[in-house]
Amino acid sequence: MTVKDKLKAVRGMMEKDGAGAYVVTTADYHNSEYVGAYFETRKFLSGFTGSAGTLVVGLEEAALFTDGRYYIQAKRELCGTGIRLMKMGMEGTPSVFSYVKSLLGDSHKKIAMDFRTVTAKDGKKYAEAAGLLDREYGNIIWENRPAMSCEPVFELDIRYAGEDRQSKISRIREYMESVQAKHHIVTTLDDIAWTLNIRGNDILYNPMVLSYLYISMEEVILYSDKNKFSGELTKRLLNDGVILSDYEAFYDKLAGLFGSVLLDKDRTNYLADSMLPETVLRVERANPEILMKAVKNETEIKNIRQAHIKDGAAVTKFIYWLKNAVKTGTLTERDAADYLEMLRKEQDGYLEPSFTTISAYNANAAMMHYNPYEADAAVLKPQGILLVDSGGQYLEGTTDITRTVALGEVCSEIKSQYTAVLRGMLNLSNAKFLKGCIGMNLDILARGPLWELGLDYRCGTGHGVGYLLGVHEPPNGFRWKRVPERDDGCILLPGMITTDEPGVYIDGSHGIRIENELLTVYDVTNEYGDFLKFETLTYAPIEMELVDWEQMSPKETERLKTYQKSVYKTLAPFLSTDEQAWLYHVCCEM
Amino acid sequence: MTVKDKLKAVRGMMEKDGAGAYVVTTADYHNSEYVGAYFETRKFLSGFTGSAGTLVVGLEEAALFTDGRYYIQAKRELCGTGIRLMKMGMEGTPSVFSYVKSLLGDSHKKIAMDFRTVTAKDGKKYAEAAGLLDREYGNIIWENRPAMSCEPVFELDIRYAGEDRQSKISRIREYMESVQAKHHIVTTLDDIAWTLNIRGNDILYNPMVLSYLYISMEEVILYSDKNKFSGELTKRLLNDGVILSDYEAFYDKLAGLFGSVLLDKDRTNYLADSMLPETVLRVERANPEILMKAVKNETEIKNIRQAHIKDGAAVTKFIYWLKNAVKTGTLTERDAADYLEMLRKEQDGYLEPSFTTISAYNANAAMMHYNPYEADAAVLKPQGILLVDSGGQYLEGTTDITRTVALGEVCSEIKSQYTAVLRGMLNLSNAKFLKGCIGMNLDILARGPLWELGLDYRCGTGHGVGYLLGVHEPPNGFRWKRVPERDDGCILLPGMITTDEPGVYIDGSHGIRIENELLTVYDVTNEYGDFLKFETLTYAPIEMELVDWEQMSPKETERLKTYQKSVYKTLAPFLSTDEQAWLYHVCCEM
Repeated sequence: MTVKDKLKAVRGMMEKDGAGAYVVTTADYHNSEYVGAYFETRKFLSGFTGSAGTLVVGLEEAALFTDGRYYIQAKRELCGTGIRLMKMGMEGTPSVFSYVKSLLGDSHKKIAMDFRTVTAKDGKKYAEAAGLLDREYGNIIWENRPAMSCEPVFELDIRYAGEDRQSKISRIREYMESVQAKHHIVTTLDDIAWTLNIRGNDILYNPMVLSYLYISMEEVILYSDKNKFSGELTKRLLNDGVILSDYEAFYDKLAGLFGSVLLDKDRTNYLADSMLPETVLRVERANPEILMKAVKNETEIKNIRQAHIKDGAAVTKFIYWLKNAVKTGTLTERDAADYLEMLRKEQDGYLEPSFTTISAYNANAAMMHYNPYEADAAVLKPQGILLVDSGGQYLEGTTDITRTVALGEVCSEIKSQYTAVLRGMLNLSNAKFLKGCIGMNLDILARGPLWELGLDYRCGTGHGVGYLLGVHEPPNGFRWKRVPERDDGCILLPGMITTDEPGVYIDGSHGIRIENELLTVYDVTNEYGDFLKFETLTYAPIEMELVDWEQMSPKETERLKTYQKSVYKTLAPFLSTDEQAWLYHVCCEM
Repeated sequence: MTVKDKLKAVRGMMEKDGAGAYVVTTADYHNSEYVGAYFETRKFLSGFTGSAGTLVVGLEEAALFTDGRYYIQAKRELCGTGIRLMKMGMEGTPSVFSYVKSLLGDSHKKIAMDFRTVTAKDGKKYAEAAGLLDREYGNIIWENRPAMSCEPVFELDIRYAGEDRQSKISRIREYMESVQAKHHIVTTLDDIAWTLNIRGNDILYNPMVLSYLYISMEEVILYSDKNKFSGELTKRLLNDGVILSDYEAFYDKLAGLFGSVLLDKDRTNYLADSMLPETVLRVERANPEILMKAVKNETEIKNIRQAHIKDGAAVTKFIYWLKNAVKTGTLTERDAADYLEMLRKEQDGYLEPSFTTISAYNANAAMMHYNPYEADAAVLKPQGILLVDSGGQYLEGTTDITRTVALGEVCSEIKSQYTAVLRGMLNLSNAKFLKGCIGMNLDILARGPLWELGLDYRCGTGHGVGYLLGVHEPPNGFRWKRVPERDDGCILLPGMITTDEPGVYIDGSHGIRIENELLTVYDVTNEYGDFLKFETLTYAPIEMELVDWEQMSPKETERLKTYQKSVYKTLAPFLSTDEQAWLYHVCCEM
């Protein structure tokens, strides 16, 4: 079935129902950023494979909304489908909501969507504009739809989690009391996994468990496929007061609640909100788990430091190998990604990648989220640059790192841009700032060197990172413009981890990005308040062949030298003699 | 009458009325930042002379709320009055509103205030918390209260204003149409003066005219004391369709309106809002005049550049004089301020200072808004530093400039701090950024060098400046934290003028501030958007004796040299031979 045929079939059902628009988000029932194959209805219908985007099907036209990371990819993938690309964040692009309204016009037609795949807040907004229909047209015509994932669940030991589930639940209950909520429903998989110290494998790269959680002062009920849980784990949960129930039974529970319910309307799905009786008092707050989870505890931090050393060793070995292997002239982007994955697998405690490795050569790297496994992977030549953005899920935490490597001769324009990116990355990671700052206060430190050159990257500078959870985790991040739906504008607190990844993306030519992860820590406290700074968690060498020393200030040069030395000192014990010699040259003989 | 006696008298009236709190803002009936003597009820009652603050009188206690600029001054002035100082912006300080509520408790007592001295929005908020009484207790006991100002009004010629009043009114009417408003009321004096190209002298330093303005599609009525207007000006206004009416008649007009009224509830007073019939549809928007006025037109910009050259010449002559005159050892802070004022008066088109000159020696400068005319002005010795923050009202525009001058020997700590302030000032003024940035995006460029040293200044980095209007003008500014009531968080647009004035304030020791004014201008426009940058408008030498070159990066040194050379080149033609030689040495022989 072509995309055009699929849309035709959908439109047939829409007409029967009196629907003027059908909204297909990129979402499971848990507002997850990445979704399991079972939930990839938007991809099935539109052919667009990116990780973010919303498809809107009208009776005459259709549009796909996605952000700057995917403009190029979406343009290519939507070609010939008749689906219009809507570039979110560009001036003049309507919001999904106003586009849907424009499709309806004065027609009094309805809006169709799967109520489980939109947030309560969005659902309400749509409901105020027109009648809503709870429909999954896309899934009706989806032959061979994959089954819902049912991977085994495991417990995250206290030596990794640092705090047991009873302590977490009691902190959550304290918060519930403070906002006078009798019940609390949690539908976000990372919040549930964090609360209960459980991990699973229901979503590629995201070791989470498809489930819903209900917490009251007396009860904790986890709604999930019971087959995923061993008898031992079920018992351990029960010992801690956590009862297992069936996945779909969650909605029945909601229908029977009364009193006050703490729920996060930006995250809970619209069906859940609709199932709660009208008389229930909604205490609308962000899930308290979000902030608790973002501020890593001491055990987590100790572990994360170790995860980054392992991960950095793998990446550093990879760069050493790449520089030699590329000389064959036959290596592809995919081969490189595979080799890096092999090196990560050699590391103790490594479970899986934290996202699809981006291994992008020259012009391919202009696509911020290029996927070498879904394209004709380019062959690497001993010239130009390779951008590799990758990460791992370790028992000791989640990593995310980008290095742009020179494979041979590189033009001066790229060196100049690489140096600006490097300066931005270093300047942000060396910031000192008062507690109270949000990412927006600091973003220009990373972006400024590019703005000076009349360049920009059309995305944030960095995002929060989970602990053996999502590689993108709210509520912290670096961004210059407020984008409410990104939910990364909170104040930076000690214990939060955020990536620092400025870049340059020149369509048709090349892409550059350097990414380190930063842990927020205390600096001095005095009469002005608490000063904070960052500890760099990531260890892997910066590409010296791409540095234009002329552009670096003495302070920036000093910062780079300090970083490179720390890389050598930290990683040398884990490298072969040859690798060590090479790394010493790169890091200590500038 | 002592402050304690005054509060006692006020409390007597409160008890009779059943009032549990009496709120005295620093405001005239126009939400002006600075107010005429007639309106200084808060100063009369509390003894606190700062330009910002709110007095709240309860039956048992009283408190004065003010911001970081005035902590030290307020502490001193409130001493012995029994009035508690509430440091706004410090953690733990309640808002005025919650303090008022805490005074009332469960007493069901009322809140008294002069309805003309609170905004419609604040009034509504108070009204939701308790019954309100429109009272001016303070004024009842104020013997010898000054009369309301009635200074002559003059017209700002088109060669200064750059746009005639008919054009401005038609732009305002276009906006009214776009928001479907039949009527528009303007109570802010700067918006009225800008719209009608009139200036007056009703408020010290602010060449504005006490008045209210009414605009509909058919009518324009200016409510003001008719005696201020010459027959000629009255006629010219009438020719342009502007009818003069009595000041107090404004409220009668409001009572008779129907249909939709555009009003700015953050600025219009609560009495005006209360006088509008219930049935009137309030179109609540920021006054459209604010943004129109903030984006200076080409004529204004051309003039402002000239005003700054004149002003810079005066300040530069002052510094030259000061460095010699201080050797006598008898000069006071006030003498210095007076001499500077004399030099400004020699400039063509100069009308008056744009605020009280701050001439603050050593420890006095730790008070951000120290007033040498209200204190025992210190005697200047040929050692330490003098901070001089001053500005002028010229027909060609309003200026605001701060220089910190070395009078002799200075310790290395001060040099180090001065250099950090200088680096911040230069780095912000050399920023290049995408259109869409607000002050919060850029603030760290100025503040970062101080944060690096564990220092901070407890205020914004800069504020908008008017054209022969208020020296503090919304909606642009630089600030790291959002402070909604400051109203300076708009995106920076070409044509806006903002000050760049980082500082260091060490209680009991010294204060440092350097302030230039920046005009936002276009840089390159490309596929990433419109890049903007700043043109520095202020010309006066930086204090070379306070620069610690070790701290300056090569780029910062270059920026300083470029600035100093531009100062010499611009100002030399206006200086004596001796002054020229000195300035050449300071600016071109680094």
